[in-house]
Amino acid sequence: GTMSVVKLEEYRERIRKELDSAVDFWLKYSHDTIHGGFFTCIGRDGKVYDELKYVWLQGRQVWMYCRLYRTMDRFRRPEILEAAKAGGAFLRKFARVSSGQWKCAFCLTRDGKAVKIQRTIFSECFYIMAMDELSRVLGDKDMQLEAEQMMEQLIYWVKEDSSGLGRPQLPGDVPTNSMAVPMMLLCLVQQLTDGRGQEVVQKYGELASWCVQQILQHIQRDGTAVLENVSPEGAELPGCQGRLQNPGHALEAGWFLLQVSAEQGDTELRQTAINKFVELPYQKGWDKEHGGLFYFLDVDGHCPTQLEWSMKLWWPHCEALIAFLMAYSQTKKPELLETFSQVYEYTFNHFPDAKNGEWFGYLTQEGKVTLDFKGGPFKGFFHVPRCLYMCERILDDLLAYTKD
Amino acid sequence: GTMSVVKLEEYRERIRKELDSAVDFWLKYSHDTIHGGFFTCIGRDGKVYDELKYVWLQGRQVWMYCRLYRTMDRFRRPEILEAAKAGGAFLRKFARVSSGQWKCAFCLTRDGKAVKIQRTIFSECFYIMAMDELSRVLGDKDMQLEAEQMMEQLIYWVKEDSSGLGRPQLPGDVPTNSMAVPMMLLCLVQQLTDGRGQEVVQKYGELASWCVQQILQHIQRDGTAVLENVSPEGAELPGCQGRLQNPGHALEAGWFLLQVSAEQGDTELRQTAINKFVELPYQKGWDKEHGGLFYFLDVDGHCPTQLEWSMKLWWPHCEALIAFLMAYSQTKKPELLETFSQVYEYTFNHFPDAKNGEWFGYLTQEGKVTLDFKGGPFKGFFHVPRCLYMCERILDDLLAYTKD
Repeated sequence: GTMSVVKLEEYRERIRKELDSAVDFWLKYSHDTIHGGFFTCIGRDGKVYDELKYVWLQGRQVWMYCRLYRTMDRFRRPEILEAAKAGGAFLRKFARVSSGQWKCAFCLTRDGKAVKIQRTIFSECFYIMAMDELSRVLGDKDMQLEAEQMMEQLIYWVKEDSSGLGRPQLPGDVPTNSMAVPMMLLCLVQQLTDGRGQEVVQKYGELASWCVQQILQHIQRDGTAVLENVSPEGAELPGCQGRLQNPGHALEAGWFLLQVSAEQGDTELRQTAINKFVELPYQKGWDKEHGGLFYFLDVDGHCPTQLEWSMKLWWPHCEALIAFLMAYSQTKKPELLETFSQVYEYTFNHFPDAKNGEWFGYLTQEGKVTLDFKGGPFKGFFHVPRCLYMCERILDDLLAYTKD
Repeated sequence: GTMSVVKLEEYRERIRKELDSAVDFWLKYSHDTIHGGFFTCIGRDGKVYDELKYVWLQGRQVWMYCRLYRTMDRFRRPEILEAAKAGGAFLRKFARVSSGQWKCAFCLTRDGKAVKIQRTIFSECFYIMAMDELSRVLGDKDMQLEAEQMMEQLIYWVKEDSSGLGRPQLPGDVPTNSMAVPMMLLCLVQQLTDGRGQEVVQKYGELASWCVQQILQHIQRDGTAVLENVSPEGAELPGCQGRLQNPGHALEAGWFLLQVSAEQGDTELRQTAINKFVELPYQKGWDKEHGGLFYFLDVDGHCPTQLEWSMKLWWPHCEALIAFLMAYSQTKKPELLETFSQVYEYTFNHFPDAKNGEWFGYLTQEGKVTLDFKGGPFKGFFHVPRCLYMCERILDDLLAYTKD
């Protein structure tokens, strides 16, 4: 009806402005014009409060700049392309810990010296995302090849032998399917294959199916919960680790699955994604007292051991906005738009900083800003602009369709 | 005056009751009578919510049981001794990752299989504390020797070559004097030498002086701040790491230094300890708005990047109580007792659980309990009983002196 078109246009207007503001903020404050790459620790007013360069965030910022440059006319600006190229060059020069090896550092000094290495795959994941998207903008086949080669290494670490990651094999450390791993690999498959034709889709087809299955294994307790960590065979794990729920992560998996279901025309997967990875985490994770999504919950109602469990973080709300809007756009079920609106109200009332631009990232359970920086070790130019970008595009489609 | 004696007796009475209640709680709920050792993840009502056994907490519980058994008549009970022996046996059987090596696991399964190893010295520190104190109770020379041998390994890791800890040497990872290391070593020197005669005091004398000097290096900014991490030469480090303040940790260092100053009759050290490690962290760390000590602060007033920076944790308050009461007992300056009273009021009004016994550990900035378990990966039978034990003994001395 007309009311909902007005509402959707209002959302799009606000979202477009927020995206412009976020881009402006990072263009203005995050570029290191001396050593290349991006500062990621940026205070509420834009001031750099630490010069360390977190590799996840370097890769994500390159990716996001390129995606905006490549797909949205108003961001096809030379300064965005130049910044992405400089970030990509910094990564290629410094991220890999030793030449000839694929392992990347987690954190670098301003001038590119390795400070810390994580014994996980995530620095490498964001390196691949950056290189693939940058290769699309530049038409650089070598760069695309480098992304695919690192992907091969990742697949080997995940599916064959993880000993190259440096984690000691311990008898009490049982193998775990933690949701982040198949989610990241699925995201990378979509990145590497999108619009590139059947050959590469086939190359990664089996991996994509495996990722979907590994994600679906997290549906537990007769379909009443999505658990963050399960056994590789899809059984529940004992203790806190096994009972952990991360609603924002489940919601992010939800829209990843919705993308797959749309590509493949798989309506059963779509229904599972909506029921179990969009509606269920929202029902479990939404704080009925103060609003907002909890960061962690224990499925049996024990208190999580993570000190930040009850805090409201920006990124689960970003993922929820994408998930509900995408689910609505695929089904047109009004209750999904209803929930989108509820998450939208909470998000836009709590996170944006009207004074200095960009969003705060960390609120107390009650909704008070408790860490006021715009960028930190885990918050960069990624979740906010990706959410706004995805939502703007979905709204464009919805509104274009409405007008026909 | 009479008023203060009444007040001190009131404190002692409450502290004694809280100590009895804490001991009862852990005796009742934490013992694993099947596999030995202690459950450390215990909910508000005493229920075990995870069976993992954290090695820090195993060692600390053995130490605390033995110390209470050895030095306080009302805790010289067979069940306490038996539990300490069983905990010690569990540690000796399972904590060391491979036989012939000193490296200990961080976390074990219920039946003693290693789950995780930290690339630090702290599991080993608490192993040494446990073994030394247990050896005193049992008169077991072999056990004492084992503690001293592991101590030699620790000293080698800290002062000669840390590569055995397994942390890769990275060009951007600059050497750091983090306060925890000299604090722990100083604590261990006091443990290994206390009441054992001149020979062993001399053996560790140089190390003790080194630890004191390393701790004093954390006084920075012309004496206006204690910083958690400095360079090995005592210079300020750049970035968040260099600006970090941990008031509870500084207060704990404060009473460690007060003990050294008392043993050595060093009044200059006593004055430095009181000014810089007792009064200053309290002035900087006390929340004027809501009361209680912040967990982390940035010396330049930036927002710390630790999500829990503004939370009120039980253990900094425990350390503050010991530090201020010890400082008062050594100087009789009324303003120190004043501050003790203020910390006491906050602590006893917020942390104890009147219903189920023991203390909550984690409050929001505003003082609301936000994690309601009594034991978790970093909270066991240690800071609460050690604080109550130390304070009770200091109050005994103060009150005995007052009556003369």
